[in-house]
Amino acid sequence: MASSLLPPACSIGDPMIRVNDDVLRKAAAKEDASLEHIKAGLAAGTIVIPANNRRSMDKPCAVGKGLKTKVNANIGVSHGYSDIDAEIRKMEAAVDAGADALMDLSTGPLVKKLREKIMSLCPIPVGTVPIYEIADEPEGAFLSRGEEDFLDVLRQQAEAGVDFFTIHAGISLDIARRAAENRRVMNIVSRGGALLASWMLSGDRENPFLSRYDDVLDILKEYDITISLGDSLRPGSVCDATDDLQISELVLLGELQRRAFEKDVQVIIEGPGHVPLDQIEANVKLEKSLCHGAPFYVLGPLVTDAAPGYDHIVSAIGGAIAASAGADFLCYVTPAEHLRLPGEDDVRSGVIASKIAAHAADIVKGVPSAIQLDRKISEARAARDWKRQFALALDPRLPEKVRKSQEPDKEDVCTMCSEYCSIKIMEDCVKARQALNESGSK
Amino acid sequence: MASSLLPPACSIGDPMIRVNDDVLRKAAAKEDASLEHIKAGLAAGTIVIPANNRRSMDKPCAVGKGLKTKVNANIGVSHGYSDIDAEIRKMEAAVDAGADALMDLSTGPLVKKLREKIMSLCPIPVGTVPIYEIADEPEGAFLSRGEEDFLDVLRQQAEAGVDFFTIHAGISLDIARRAAENRRVMNIVSRGGALLASWMLSGDRENPFLSRYDDVLDILKEYDITISLGDSLRPGSVCDATDDLQISELVLLGELQRRAFEKDVQVIIEGPGHVPLDQIEANVKLEKSLCHGAPFYVLGPLVTDAAPGYDHIVSAIGGAIAASAGADFLCYVTPAEHLRLPGEDDVRSGVIASKIAAHAADIVKGVPSAIQLDRKISEARAARDWKRQFALALDPRLPEKVRKSQEPDKEDVCTMCSEYCSIKIMEDCVKARQALNESGSK
Repeated sequence: MASSLLPPACSIGDPMIRVNDDVLRKAAAKEDASLEHIKAGLAAGTIVIPANNRRSMDKPCAVGKGLKTKVNANIGVSHGYSDIDAEIRKMEAAVDAGADALMDLSTGPLVKKLREKIMSLCPIPVGTVPIYEIADEPEGAFLSRGEEDFLDVLRQQAEAGVDFFTIHAGISLDIARRAAENRRVMNIVSRGGALLASWMLSGDRENPFLSRYDDVLDILKEYDITISLGDSLRPGSVCDATDDLQISELVLLGELQRRAFEKDVQVIIEGPGHVPLDQIEANVKLEKSLCHGAPFYVLGPLVTDAAPGYDHIVSAIGGAIAASAGADFLCYVTPAEHLRLPGEDDVRSGVIASKIAAHAADIVKGVPSAIQLDRKISEARAARDWKRQFALALDPRLPEKVRKSQEPDKEDVCTMCSEYCSIKIMEDCVKARQALNESGSK
Repeated sequence: MASSLLPPACSIGDPMIRVNDDVLRKAAAKEDASLEHIKAGLAAGTIVIPANNRRSMDKPCAVGKGLKTKVNANIGVSHGYSDIDAEIRKMEAAVDAGADALMDLSTGPLVKKLREKIMSLCPIPVGTVPIYEIADEPEGAFLSRGEEDFLDVLRQQAEAGVDFFTIHAGISLDIARRAAENRRVMNIVSRGGALLASWMLSGDRENPFLSRYDDVLDILKEYDITISLGDSLRPGSVCDATDDLQISELVLLGELQRRAFEKDVQVIIEGPGHVPLDQIEANVKLEKSLCHGAPFYVLGPLVTDAAPGYDHIVSAIGGAIAASAGADFLCYVTPAEHLRLPGEDDVRSGVIASKIAAHAADIVKGVPSAIQLDRKISEARAARDWKRQFALALDPRLPEKVRKSQEPDKEDVCTMCSEYCSIKIMEDCVKARQALNESGSK
């Protein structure tokens, strides 16, 4: 019976997932939720803690139901642009800005060297997209690689200590054939999805991640690697959102989530993409229903295609709406999206924009410390305690810099309203009123 | 009977509002909606066209139901910072970035000189907040100004050609007294609201904009100035959102909207402010219900207090949600909000962020040209036609600059994916498939 295969909605007790105690405690320390809640979520598949059992890290994190919304930053060299030091600086900028996880999307000759460095230095969970390395072969050679080659790369990256893998197992040969009918405005915009489609369509053969899914899961289980089921068919234009291809893949991802869960492999589901803002909530609800409450990891969503150069803002809008509807994990989008590889400043801007979206959502998700932060910062603002206000801010450095760039005459106001500061005016009114009341009651 | 006082839901025919034909035609030319729709909206009070009958302008705009969401930018000198040329450059930056309206929030000795310059140069509707000039007196003198002084300033600004006035008539003495009980985290954060509260509370006297509301309306009617009913009690912290003070004022604004509408004065209602994102839709619905469908003009909304330095992003999130729920007019918020007067770059960033929010909302509001733009830009992106893609973008200049800062080896990709461009890969797949099908059908 299919229903017996569904994960339990909630089962208190030790998780089936074998997250080690140290990692669990460190991850739990960041949350308002209890250790018991997190264990129950791990057991139910509604929470994951991506952590390869071959490596230790300072700042693991839990992702899922009842927890703070998490943010991922992507970095990585490519064939044209390969500067390992620059990527390490981007990694540091991402961590400094508050990213909870990092994905290394590298291609090119320096992939292994950079990965080694990242794995040794990065304090937060690291993810990769193994199909990039599988496909990164001299011209044409990728298409002659066999299923075993796919698994070999997974084993190598697992041994290197990667904490979570994006595996595009949901694009079946059938779905790839339908994509090849080319009915969308933007066809497949997922790099991994397009590579797999080309492999499948060139030889009319099934996706190895799907045909060998049990073998994939065995590798992941051995290292306690979390599988992040990629969405090859995510829409790349709002015109393509929530279409038959996207939803067909999501239905398959639900089945693959169940199979991974049954093998005690932790699962995240990846989601769109470019989505008109009134379709975002439905996308989240669909994922939660079809994928049995598994954590949902969205890219953006981008609520318009029309603002290249500002896609961090476009994505902050979509991310806030998605997270408030139940998405658990936001993949950042930088101002460089659709234009070029992001630089260090882009990485910082992308992380901050996603953190804003995550925090705005956490306020309405009922995460107690989220609304408490807003209360504290507003109290500091009401007291014109600039130092405390800035120390509490999501970016504690920029506001001070902006304020200093145009210093007011008096320390307790800003140049926006100067002596017409509404807060000061009302403070005087309240004081005068209180004095009047006190003298009246004497 | 109260119900007979409500504006008609829709009445085809000449509007009661006396917008001149040239202004009406220019405003209509920007919209997908028909001239008849706009006339009906003017007649019903669901659409306004702010345009003082003493001045002509190149780019008037209509605001309201069934139209594109509009964006306002605020500029203005203050006592500490008075550089007229800098403000004119900000005005030009706002217009260039696509602002539909401009508010001059100036205080200080240069107010009249700057306003004169703005009125002669600005191609878009200009609004002011007359209480700023009324209150801008040597220490203490404001509190001894009488009701007639208030009306005199309105007459002067009307004669100067201002197209819309923010009038804080909704803060009654009763509401000001309740605010003085100081139960909020942030009390009154509206500068105009705080000034009026101080005037009322210092002498236990009613708000002149309320006690002399009929006289105010007579002045506005004479010049066809649109009244934008200010929300003095807008929340300044998400902790204060949708509270009794805010909603008490909104109820009164509904009554004031009705009275203005009966006198053939065009009305906009101003709204919050700092609002958790799950309360934004309710705020819009409340305004539409209490204020008889009058256009809703929101500041932000800001969905968190915790991101000073990034409040343009915080507001883009709230603005997109508000506009998609029916808000008609977004007042921009710049990265300098809460910190200092905005500079020229802040003005540009603020306008673009609000334009993104407005456009994302217009896609789901069903404005045909909005989704058509996204389709066109995605088609250009799919064709890797960078020139066309950038020409169509909400900011046509920045994306080219970003792309040029890291030129790819080949013109038809970007450095993000380089030769692993998903679009190119799929294009090849589709071509190969078509060739196969054609050879198969031979």
